[in-house]
Amino acid sequence: MNPDTAVLRSDSTSGDLRAEMAAIGAAARRAAAVLALTPAETKAKALRAAAESIRRASAEILAANAKDMEAARAKGLSAAMLDRLALTPARIDAMAGGLEAIADFPDPIGRTLAEWDRPSGLKIARVAVPLGVIGVIYESRPNVTADAGGLCLKSGNAAILRGGSESFQTSGVILTCLHTGLRAASLPEAAIQRLPTTDRAAVGMLLTMNDTVDIIVPRGGRGLIERVQNESRIPVIAHLDGMCHTYIHAGADPRKAREIALNAKMRRPGICGAMETLLVDRAVASSLLPPILSDLIEAGCEIRGDETVRKLEPRAVTAKPEDWDTEYLDAILAVKTVEDLDGALEHIAHHGSQHTEAIVTEDAQAAEEFLTRVDAAIVMHNTSTQFADGAEFGMGAEIGISTGRLHARGPVGADQLTSYKYIVRSDGRVRP
Amino acid sequence: MNPDTAVLRSDSTSGDLRAEMAAIGAAARRAAAVLALTPAETKAKALRAAAESIRRASAEILAANAKDMEAARAKGLSAAMLDRLALTPARIDAMAGGLEAIADFPDPIGRTLAEWDRPSGLKIARVAVPLGVIGVIYESRPNVTADAGGLCLKSGNAAILRGGSESFQTSGVILTCLHTGLRAASLPEAAIQRLPTTDRAAVGMLLTMNDTVDIIVPRGGRGLIERVQNESRIPVIAHLDGMCHTYIHAGADPRKAREIALNAKMRRPGICGAMETLLVDRAVASSLLPPILSDLIEAGCEIRGDETVRKLEPRAVTAKPEDWDTEYLDAILAVKTVEDLDGALEHIAHHGSQHTEAIVTEDAQAAEEFLTRVDAAIVMHNTSTQFADGAEFGMGAEIGISTGRLHARGPVGADQLTSYKYIVRSDGRVRP
Repeated sequence: MNPDTAVLRSDSTSGDLRAEMAAIGAAARRAAAVLALTPAETKAKALRAAAESIRRASAEILAANAKDMEAARAKGLSAAMLDRLALTPARIDAMAGGLEAIADFPDPIGRTLAEWDRPSGLKIARVAVPLGVIGVIYESRPNVTADAGGLCLKSGNAAILRGGSESFQTSGVILTCLHTGLRAASLPEAAIQRLPTTDRAAVGMLLTMNDTVDIIVPRGGRGLIERVQNESRIPVIAHLDGMCHTYIHAGADPRKAREIALNAKMRRPGICGAMETLLVDRAVASSLLPPILSDLIEAGCEIRGDETVRKLEPRAVTAKPEDWDTEYLDAILAVKTVEDLDGALEHIAHHGSQHTEAIVTEDAQAAEEFLTRVDAAIVMHNTSTQFADGAEFGMGAEIGISTGRLHARGPVGADQLTSYKYIVRSDGRVRP
Repeated sequence: MNPDTAVLRSDSTSGDLRAEMAAIGAAARRAAAVLALTPAETKAKALRAAAESIRRASAEILAANAKDMEAARAKGLSAAMLDRLALTPARIDAMAGGLEAIADFPDPIGRTLAEWDRPSGLKIARVAVPLGVIGVIYESRPNVTADAGGLCLKSGNAAILRGGSESFQTSGVILTCLHTGLRAASLPEAAIQRLPTTDRAAVGMLLTMNDTVDIIVPRGGRGLIERVQNESRIPVIAHLDGMCHTYIHAGADPRKAREIALNAKMRRPGICGAMETLLVDRAVASSLLPPILSDLIEAGCEIRGDETVRKLEPRAVTAKPEDWDTEYLDAILAVKTVEDLDGALEHIAHHGSQHTEAIVTEDAQAAEEFLTRVDAAIVMHNTSTQFADGAEFGMGAEIGISTGRLHARGPVGADQLTSYKYIVRSDGRVRP
């Protein structure tokens, strides 16, 4: 069965779809068994061949993308969504380069994570193995097809992809290129499949296929993530929100505070690691805040502040209670004064989303207390929250940043898409 | 609210129960926040004080256990279940010793799991933190109350326990001892709670409390595990079956094969790591099997074999197809001849439960192929499968052995009941 052609059938009934989905799951499971035993160099060969195929198919990808864009414009999609959907020759080249970077990264499978000997005579090793089959559900960005497919392949996992309906034509051509790469390395095409249709019903079925799918990774807005978390019978790795705070402590270096605040918000306001709320100790608000808020306003940022903030900066508007819980992903910043470290910790505990939280201070003791007491995937000292990123962490490409606590927390790269097994050797030992 | 007294109320309605369960969840969440920041020595102090309290309360525990046993006999429970339920002074002492062993083990929280520097100037560390709140659902063994409560405390997690109704009185006294230990270390009693009732409805509610419970660990028979896996809206760490095989390869050392086969089955046939099926290469069946089967039969084991096996050992009965999938947990063994390594791998792939699988051979290449290709939590070479145990692995006490691939695979000790966070430090770096 070819999932790329299945969608063209107009007579597909729910029963047919269920059978197709089961076949996709079974094929993924078989492919996963092959991938688990595939040497690193074979996977790297497939990734490089896929990158080459994407570069060669550039015109074809652009043509498919033009069709998707036309349909998206006809549907009245927002400018931001159109931008996420649009490919250019440069973006296609970056997509191919991304696969090559994944190929170059150390292979995560077969690594000895730990080994030790026991007094009983047993030699024990914990060795990395793939997870199995990963379902990736994402929205309009067609490059996720290459990124997610490449990361799953690198980590020895079979992928079942479900991209947004807006990018269905574009993603189809990209998937064909990935299959070309798999064939070049004599690997099964079922290593990377996609759902035969963008029907919601198919997603619902995928989320219940816990006999053939081991983990679900949703990438997208809050609505998508919540729906997946509510419906899935399969464990989900995801981040719901990036309600990131930067806390300027009374002991902050003014220059660092100014540079970090501007960068954390305005470098790219739309990423999940962007600062959404700035907290400042009351004692230093009047000395440190004015230049920081001026920088931000001059860079085009709207400031929503409490009373103290508005007195210091008349261009600020009054923050409403919901501002302390809003992930703007935009050039808007909520700014609040707090009494002290405890006040900042309490605000973050109530309003943070356990993504990334930062303190700016020269007071080492205050920094350690913040880093220890804040419960988040990433805690930072004198560092811009915009660094919350797998590539910046040196982990290679990432499939997302997990705000959950199970299996993987923080950036999820190829290393995190693995499980392990114990290999036990002895010279014939029996247990007393 | 005191969960120990709540059960005594006879006017409890479903609405009341829901409110009580929510209160237990909220109290656990608050206790988890305290435990996450509790120093290692404070947790160890609580564990030792709990052990002391259990030893001091020995008579009281035995009295409560006598009541549970009486009720269990009246209900007509099987001898095996009565044995699991019964406590003796020696078993109580072992339970206290178990808590002391957990106290002595290195603290899993705050360990630096990895650290590295980035060219950007960032210093990154991955540090172990607790998971949060763990729900443990188990059957009749009352000692699990101490073991599970102790392991959760050690790993900085709050525990919500739900033991079997048969051991409710006994577990209540043990829980009181754990609370004595917590108080001695000035820790909240809500660090270890139990459900106010053994109603199934309460378990159902627990399994949906995904806002306050982070992970569910069921311990018990297949029925319990399946029910929990099907109903839970919270990730589950569990093992469903221990369908463990020992494969005697043509290159096996006869003495090792004989000792390992006897031990793997008969040391304790009822544990999950006990061998359930013995596979033997056809080429060596007639030379190696007869003494092995004699040993087993003389030790009281029933042999269910294929035709070749029955010809070699007339006391063997004929295996039915379902024998290849039956976890006897008893002195019964299925024995099958296979053509070669591939035949053994195929049988294990179809009938194994990804728990523990062993090969006996002096052929290093065959051993490596087996260890690599078998997909199981634990794979062994020339070693009895009875070693599949957290303590034997040097991991201290275990809460169970996971056959799942997510978060924890194999023995689950205090180290596995943790998550991590990233601590990022720099001197004011902003992202270019």
